[in-house]
Amino acid sequence: MLDSALQFILECDKLKAIERRSRPVGMSRRENSAEHSWSLALAAMTLGPAIDPTLDLLRVLKMLILHDIVEIDAGDTFCYADQTGKAEREQAAADRIFGMLPAERSAEFMALWHEFEAGNTPEASFANALDRVMPIIQNHANQGASWLENDVRAEQVLARAEFIRGPYPALMAHIEAAVASALEAGWLK
Amino acid sequence: MLDSALQFILECDKLKAIERRSRPVGMSRRENSAEHSWSLALAAMTLGPAIDPTLDLLRVLKMLILHDIVEIDAGDTFCYADQTGKAEREQAAADRIFGMLPAERSAEFMALWHEFEAGNTPEASFANALDRVMPIIQNHANQGASWLENDVRAEQVLARAEFIRGPYPALMAHIEAAVASALEAGWLK
Repeated sequence: MLDSALQFILECDKLKAIERRSRPVGMSRRENSAEHSWSLALAAMTLGPAIDPTLDLLRVLKMLILHDIVEIDAGDTFCYADQTGKAEREQAAADRIFGMLPAERSAEFMALWHEFEAGNTPEASFANALDRVMPIIQNHANQGASWLENDVRAEQVLARAEFIRGPYPALMAHIEAAVASALEAGWLK
Repeated sequence: MLDSALQFILECDKLKAIERRSRPVGMSRRENSAEHSWSLALAAMTLGPAIDPTLDLLRVLKMLILHDIVEIDAGDTFCYADQTGKAEREQAAADRIFGMLPAERSAEFMALWHEFEAGNTPEASFANALDRVMPIIQNHANQGASWLENDVRAEQVLARAEFIRGPYPALMAHIEAAVASALEAGWLK
């Protein structure tokens, strides 16, 4: 058990080489998906208890820690780019990488990743909301950054965040305020 | 609540600029403390259920996500270097950074960080064990890397891992095997 688990953990170090479009606040380099996953886990334990104390925070954290591991094989797909073939590439990646683990852990991790992708449980919905909020507050703090580099429009940001309004209205209000201020500053079109 | 929590999360992006001595497997750059924290959280959810199913895994994950945040102000202290003044610098950092949060969350995070530092609960002991194991398996996979750069000796690695033997003998056996093989290969003195 220990050997295969440690091999899996070392294999997952490759997530530290997967670059996202966004940048850490105040840094010129791009963010990698491992440190991004850490930010989301931190956000979940910081915001979760106040936003919805009924959430199973352990499952939220597990989903966020795992959610991008498939990018090791499938790469990061920019959220405003064409998504064709993404699901198949990511499923093959999950089969290979989670398949390195003993059966029970492999099944658990696959189920958590599918739950995150489907987004249908409160825990997965909250995890997805954080994944959407984080680059918005980073880009805002970075005065546009990857929004400007990729000609992103305010309507695109709001449309992709719209699912947050129902379950997490306070979070959506924060996003709308950030988008409005970014529009005014010229950081979004 | 939301504003101060989001400010805290953005402040913590600075952990992505704190460099450790170790390197991600197969990479020439140094690892930062944010992505390192993600690796430990992943290791906890991968190994925890098999190594000790009675652990409160949520508390382990929270501790690992938070454990290095004080380095934003206090810097990373190499584990084989002089530790003078480290505790005071880190407490001041914790006061400032966790102090950005509303009282309840701030108190929780401070308590979790102190629990990790003290290492006296099973959860803190397991979290500390992972923090010790991870750079060992990374350095082994990187054929020495920061061990060679810093003239680290096998006895030093084993002495600092000795606390793992009692609670987690299988993990300690793995460390001893890695150290023995590194000695033979000349990756440790």
